[in-house]
Amino acid sequence: MAASGEEQKRSLDGEPPRPLDLPPLAISMAAQRQFDLQGYGFGAKPEQLRPPRVLRVGLVQNQIPLPTNAPVGEQVVALHRRIEEIVEVAAMCGVNVVCFQEVWTMPFAFCTRERLPWTEFAESAEDGPTTRFCQKLARKHNMVVVSPILERDATHGETLWNTAVVISNSGAVLGKSRKNHIPRIGDFNESTYYMEGDRGHPVFQTQFGKIAVNICYGRHHPLNWLLYSLNGAEIIFNPSATIGKLSESMWPIEARNAAIANHCFTCAINRVGTEVYPNPFTSGDGGEAHRDFGYFYGSSYVSAPDGSRTPGLSRTEDGLLVVEMDLNLCRQVSDTWNFKMTGRYEMYTQELAAAVQPDFVPNVIKE
Amino acid sequence: MAASGEEQKRSLDGEPPRPLDLPPLAISMAAQRQFDLQGYGFGAKPEQLRPPRVLRVGLVQNQIPLPTNAPVGEQVVALHRRIEEIVEVAAMCGVNVVCFQEVWTMPFAFCTRERLPWTEFAESAEDGPTTRFCQKLARKHNMVVVSPILERDATHGETLWNTAVVISNSGAVLGKSRKNHIPRIGDFNESTYYMEGDRGHPVFQTQFGKIAVNICYGRHHPLNWLLYSLNGAEIIFNPSATIGKLSESMWPIEARNAAIANHCFTCAINRVGTEVYPNPFTSGDGGEAHRDFGYFYGSSYVSAPDGSRTPGLSRTEDGLLVVEMDLNLCRQVSDTWNFKMTGRYEMYTQELAAAVQPDFVPNVIKE
Repeated sequence: MAASGEEQKRSLDGEPPRPLDLPPLAISMAAQRQFDLQGYGFGAKPEQLRPPRVLRVGLVQNQIPLPTNAPVGEQVVALHRRIEEIVEVAAMCGVNVVCFQEVWTMPFAFCTRERLPWTEFAESAEDGPTTRFCQKLARKHNMVVVSPILERDATHGETLWNTAVVISNSGAVLGKSRKNHIPRIGDFNESTYYMEGDRGHPVFQTQFGKIAVNICYGRHHPLNWLLYSLNGAEIIFNPSATIGKLSESMWPIEARNAAIANHCFTCAINRVGTEVYPNPFTSGDGGEAHRDFGYFYGSSYVSAPDGSRTPGLSRTEDGLLVVEMDLNLCRQVSDTWNFKMTGRYEMYTQELAAAVQPDFVPNVIKE
Repeated sequence: MAASGEEQKRSLDGEPPRPLDLPPLAISMAAQRQFDLQGYGFGAKPEQLRPPRVLRVGLVQNQIPLPTNAPVGEQVVALHRRIEEIVEVAAMCGVNVVCFQEVWTMPFAFCTRERLPWTEFAESAEDGPTTRFCQKLARKHNMVVVSPILERDATHGETLWNTAVVISNSGAVLGKSRKNHIPRIGDFNESTYYMEGDRGHPVFQTQFGKIAVNICYGRHHPLNWLLYSLNGAEIIFNPSATIGKLSESMWPIEARNAAIANHCFTCAINRVGTEVYPNPFTSGDGGEAHRDFGYFYGSSYVSAPDGSRTPGLSRTEDGLLVVEMDLNLCRQVSDTWNFKMTGRYEMYTQELAAAVQPDFVPNVIKE
C-alpha cells in the first residue's frame, strides 16, 4: 500500500488547512505594501453542548525598515509605521489576536554585546510608547495585541527583560510574560542583557480564548510549552528571532511538536532579513569579525493539535499569516489522545526533584 | 536570499547523513531475503581529549510472517526465524546494537480486547524463549540486543507488561525497561492488557554507549524522553506500532524533536503491513466491526542531536536501517545549545508539583 506523492505529503504534514478567502482589498493592499499575505483555516467537529469557538490569529514577520545606525527614535517610529500598515490589513482580514516578532521595536542587536545605543530601545511594559501605540491599535481594531519588546523595569532596579506585553481588545494592558530560557549561543549573546524570566507561565484569558507567549529560545524546552498548557493555554505564541545556519532544521519541528504534545495551537514567528551593525563583532566560532547577524529566515507558521500545519510565510519578505481556528479542536484532540490524562506528572515531579539534587545518582544499569 | 530546492531541503532536514558503504554480500542477502536495507552515517568533530566513540545501530521493522490464526508457537518460531536472518545481515554490516519493533514476537493484537490466544504470547523477560533466543544472537554476533516483548511477570501476580529486554553483547540480560505511558485510543486498547511501567527511566551502560528504551506511546510525552536523557542516555530507542490514519503526521516530528531537545540520538521503529484478526472488533469510531488493524507504515528512522535525520525505511516492506554514529556529537551539541544548562528544572519541579495538587489554581490572568 504505497502512498502517492500527494497522499504521502498529507500523511506527513497532516490534513492541510483550507485556504481562507481573504478580502480582495486586503490582498491588493498587502501587494501594494509589499508583504506576503496568506490565510488558512483549521476546523473542528460540531459538538452538542459547545458552540464552535472560532477566531482568527495574525502572525506578523518583518525586516527592520531603517539601518541599525539610524537614530533610535527614528527606528522605533519606522517600525511602528510598518506594523500599523500590516495590522490594518490584519483587521480587514478579521484578525482577533495579533502577535509580532520578538523584540519587534528594535534590531536584534544582542550579537554586539554593546550597551549603547541598544539598551535605549528598552521601554516600560506598562506605559512605554510602544505599549501605548499597541493600545491604540487594540482599541481601533478590537484586537488583542501581543507585543514582544525589550522591557525596562524601572521599579526593580532598572532591570531589562525580554518581555511580551499582552493588550486586551479593550485596550487595557492585560499583563506581561517574560522569556524563561535565555540562549548563550553564537551571536545570541542575550544573557549579557537580561536574565531568565521570573513570572512563571502566565496564561491570558482574552475574549477570544486563552493565550500564552513562549518567547524564542523557550521553544527548545518542552517543559516550557507544557507548563503554559497545564495553565490552560489554547494558543501559544512563539515570537522568535533565529537564523538559517543555526536553527532552520529545527524550526519546522519544535513548535509543531509542542502543538501535538500539548493539544493546543502553536504560532511560530521569526523575523526576516539580514541586519548589519555599525561595529564589527565575533561569533565565538573562530571566524573573522563581521558586522551582520546571518539571515533571519521568516517562515512563520501555525500548527494545530492534530499535527497538521499551515505552510510557512516567505523566507525573505515581510508577511502576515492569517489563521482561522476553532479552539474546540484542542479538547477534541485531547479527549482522543489523552496525553495529559496519561502524563503521570506525579512521577515526573518526583524524578525531576531527584534529578536536580546535588547528590543525584542517575539510574544507570551496568553489567 | 531565497533558497534553491536542494538548499531548502537541507535547511529543513538538516545536513543529510552520508550513505554508508555496506558490504555487497549484505546487500545481495537483503535483496534475496526481501527486506529494505539502508545505511547512513552521522559524524562528529574531532576532539583533543576524547577519541571518537563510533558505533553502528540497527533498526529492524517487519511484518508478521504467519497469519494471526496460526498456532501461537508457530507464529513465534516464524518471527524468530525472520529476525535471525535480518540480524545476520546486520552483523555483516557491523551493527553493534540492534533493536526490534514493539512486542516483536506477536501480532499487535490489543485491538481485539480478547484474552486468548494473545496473552499466550507473553514470556518471562529473564528466561523466556525469546530472551534465550536473543542471548544466542547477542553472543554469536557480539551485539547488544534490545528485545521488546509482552512480558509475563510470574513473580508479581502473573502481571503482564509491555517491556523491552536489554541483552548485553556478552549474552547476559542487562535489565529491562517498561512502557511508561499506555494509550487508550481507537484500536490501541492496551490499557486492557497492562499498566503503566513501574521501573522509572533506566539507562543501560553497554560497551558501545548508554542506551534507553522509550516504548511506543511514550514518544508523545516529552517528559519521558527528558528523564531518560537526564539519566544519561545517548541513544533512545522508540520501538513502536502505529498506523497511518492515526499518527503518520506526527511520526516524523516527535522522535526528531526529542533528539533535538535532549541532545541525543533517537531511533524510531514502526512495524509494517496490515494484520487481520480471526474475530471482528469495533474501533470506537462509530464504524462497522472489522477484522484488520489499519496499515502499519514502517518508515523507521534515526534522528541526530543536531536536528538532522536519516531517510525513513520503506512504508511497505520489512527493513533494516544501519546507522553509524559518533556519540561525541551528543556532548558537542549540548555544549553548543545548552538546553540542560538552561533547563531550569528546579522551577519546573515546583510548578509541576503545584499542578498535580487537587487544589491547583492555574495561573490565568483576566481583565
